[in-house]
Parts: sequence; C-alpha cells; structure tokens
Amino acid sequence: MMVRWRTQSSVAISADAASWILIDASPDILAQLRSFPEAQPSRAIRDTAIAGIVLTDSQIDHTTGLLMLREGPPLRVYCTDSVRDDLTTANPLFGILAHYCGVEWQRLETRDMARFHVQGVPGLTLRAVPLSSKAPPYSRYRHDPHEGDTLGLQVTDDATGRTLFYAPGLGRMEPHVRAIFERANCLMVDGTFWTDDEMIRLGISDKRAEDMGHLPQSGAGGMMEVLAGYRRARKILVHVNNTNPILDEDSSERGELTAAGIEVAHDGMEIVL
Amino acid sequence: MMVRWRTQSSVAISADAASWILIDASPDILAQLRSFPEAQPSRAIRDTAIAGIVLTDSQIDHTTGLLMLREGPPLRVYCTDSVRDDLTTANPLFGILAHYCGVEWQRLETRDMARFHVQGVPGLTLRAVPLSSKAPPYSRYRHDPHEGDTLGLQVTDDATGRTLFYAPGLGRMEPHVRAIFERANCLMVDGTFWTDDEMIRLGISDKRAEDMGHLPQSGAGGMMEVLAGYRRARKILVHVNNTNPILDEDSSERGELTAAGIEVAHDGMEIVL
Repeated sequence: MMVRWRTQSSVAISADAASWILIDASPDILAQLRSFPEAQPSRAIRDTAIAGIVLTDSQIDHTTGLLMLREGPPLRVYCTDSVRDDLTTANPLFGILAHYCGVEWQRLETRDMARFHVQGVPGLTLRAVPLSSKAPPYSRYRHDPHEGDTLGLQVTDDATGRTLFYAPGLGRMEPHVRAIFERANCLMVDGTFWTDDEMIRLGISDKRAEDMGHLPQSGAGGMMEVLAGYRRARKILVHVNNTNPILDEDSSERGELTAAGIEVAHDGMEIVL
Repeated sequence: MMVRWRTQSSVAISADAASWILIDASPDILAQLRSFPEAQPSRAIRDTAIAGIVLTDSQIDHTTGLLMLREGPPLRVYCTDSVRDDLTTANPLFGILAHYCGVEWQRLETRDMARFHVQGVPGLTLRAVPLSSKAPPYSRYRHDPHEGDTLGLQVTDDATGRTLFYAPGLGRMEPHVRAIFERANCLMVDGTFWTDDEMIRLGISDKRAEDMGHLPQSGAGGMMEVLAGYRRARKILVHVNNTNPILDEDSSERGELTAAGIEVAHDGMEIVL
C-alpha cells in the first residue's frame, strides 16, 4: 500500500506566473502557499501573488481558507449569488472578514456561461459552468437546488486558445457540460468517490455519492466511462475523498485509472496547459 | 537569521497519553494531528484520541479547526457563554457543525474559577481563569468586554499536584492571575508581540498590542518583567505573532529571552509537567 498524504483541493492558475487566480480556498491554504514560492513574491509585508479568488461552491473545504488570508489587503472573491448567500448567512465568512481584510465580491453569472476575467490577471478568460451537484449540508440550498450552487470553471489561455476545465463537484453529465468537456485540453474533474456506496460500505455515512452530488468513477455511467469519450484531453481527478481506494497507488482501482490514461492530482502538481 | 515556520496555537494535554484534551482548535489542526501519532489511535475509521476541546476564546485562530474535525463523532466543546455566543451568532461554527458531526457544548463557568474535568480524560483537573484581553474583531463583545471572553486554563496533574497555566491571550496582570502564576510549575503564556507598537511600526495596523488585548514582552510592566517574578516555573511563550522578532533565533530579542530563562514554543514541542 502506498498512499501519499494530500491537502484539500485548491488550485492556482496563471498565464504569466506573476499574477495568480486561486480557485477555491481550502483550509490547507497556508501550507499550500508555503510550498509554492511563486505565490509569495514578497513585494511587501504579508504580500501574496493571488489577485483574485474564484469559488466553485460554498463547501467548507473550498471556502474556509478565506479566513486564513484575512491579514492582508481586501480579498477579491468571485462567486455566484447562491454561494454568496451561504457565505453571508449560514456560514457568514464575508461578514467575519469585513472585520479584517474585507471582501470585494464580484458576482459570477452562469446565464449563457458569459466570459469573465479576474482583475489583475492578464491572459486568461474564464467561464462559470453551472453543474448538477449539491450545495453543502449547512446550506439553505442543500435540498432546494439553484443554478449556481456548484460551478465548473473553464479557463482559456488567450495566447494559445487551449482550455482547462476544473470541476471538483460534478454529479451528473449534461449536454452543456459535454460541450465543455469536448473542447477541453485538460479536464480536472470530480474524483471524490470510486463507488456510489463507498461511504455506506465503510459504515461512516448513510449517503450515496449521488446524494452528495458526486459522480463516482466506477460503474455504468461513471466518470471513467465518461472520460473515455474525450480522447484529446489530459485527464486528472481532483477532490479525492480519503475513502477512495485510488489514493493507494498500488490498488487495482488505481491501476484501472492508469490504464485508462487518467491521473490523480497530488500536492505540488504542476500542469502546463 | 534563523526562523522556523510555525503552525498556529493549539496544545494537546493528557495524563495517560491515551485520552487527550485539545486546547484551542487552530486552523492548522490537521497538520498538527498528522505530526502527532498519539492523537490517531486508529481504533476505528476517522478516529482521534481527542476526548474534548477546551476553547480559551472565540478567535479565528483558536476555533476554525473545529471545522476540520467535522467528519467524525460529535465534538465535545468546553467554552464560556460569551464564546458560545460568538460561535452561534457572528461566527456560527456550532450551527454549521450541527450539519456534520454536531457539537456537545459544555458550559465553562469562570465564577470562583470552579474546577472541572473533561469527560473521558482521567487524571487532570482544570480551572477556567478569566483574563483581561480582547474578544475577536468580529465579536459583539470586542468593545463590550464580558468576563469569560478570554480565558487562561490552569491544568493540574492529579497524581503529582503540579500545574500548568496556559494563556495565549493575556492583556493585563490582575491579582487572581498573579495567584495562578505563583502556583504554576509551567507557564505557557501570551507571546504575541515584543513591543506595544510593533504592528504600527511595520505599517500593517494602527493597533497597539494593548488594543488587541496582548501584553508585550518588552518594556516596563511587560511579560519579561512579569515572568521574572516567578522563579520556580518553566516559562514558555506561545501564540507568537509573525511580526515578533523573537521568532528569529539569532535576534538580540531572542537572546534576551534565553538569558532570562524564557523559551519560545515551537511545533512538536513536548512538555512533561
């Protein structure tokens, strides 16, 4: 058995390696920034190279890290109305942060998947792709889904036209998502669970992957089958739950992935699009 | 210059090395538990040896780690009414956690500094010592102080009678605190700032140490002078801000501390009382 310890899912994206977009702010963000010198240009005290933060949802593992960035300049945070609702009511991080650095909220629209840019980050164009998944357990939208509860993010390098699609929470493939997959040069997608009943079999939850808004990798219609349809893209699983057997590099499940040309993200992974 | 990276302040205390009290839940708690095998007995999946969590205040750096412990059994959390107020209103961690593991709140009383025990942790007796400090910036009590906003914790080993006093936020010495200092075999106390105007001189805040409820180490009436009065105790500074020159092991300030017999806490530090 060979399992590497992993921090929780956040990625940093840049076209010029000087200004960075942080996608999701994991609770492990301080350790992640520490191991990533590019994010710490040290132009001033308590400086970071993160120009803006884009949230794919309001899950605790994607938002708690905002608190760890409170001792600096205002945080420019891009998210949808429903994510902002969660972060100003049940989990009022924006209200708390107002007493420290403050938050400059930038509304993300999912209608027509309009293109947007993150201020201060040249060379990258983004689109917010609404996904079928689940709002967090604490959210008023958990059992009342709204478009914008969960996003995938398409990131295009303006210089090359190449695109990345990042989607840590993806419960169901839909036509507009298939179109985004088709276009992608790199797919970094939901790797939470191997099987739909993984948590139930381990006795730690009565919820199926589907109940939590995650498409499992194995089985009919699973993520492996989905990814097999997209031959040109590099394929990487992210947001891997600690119950998922693919974390064991010696497991047969990991072997299946590797044979299918699917990678598993790890700390410090660098991707050149 | 020699500065070791540090995680944020949490300590674990035990009499039998099997059941542990966690004092404060720092945002770095997962990394801290990972480097502390005793806390992971692995008797069951997602098991920890932490029987209860005692909070000294509701500061973000002492409470955010509760969220990282959400995927297990209910958390037994000991705190005062005013800390619970903060954690159910402005920073409603208890409400959020109700959707995951749940919180079993245990009220801490400061009146008469009554003794208490943490359920499941034999051999240790605690007292909650009310301190003059400051509630967090986000708290309704920031400018309306109440007894119980900030605690020090006296921990007595029942077998030996020896006591530890832990106080990461201590703004002013008062008679009842002097009595606790007098009695202590080990003092782990507020090491936030070296000088009262440290943040102002660095240009990152307009607040003095005093405004934030921390007694600086240097100067008349400072922590070094205070500690000089207690000869029998081991003396360790905790909760050291990243602006504090004592973090540089080669600094003259650190040299002054060392000459005075005062240590600076570091990750992985083990103290046998």
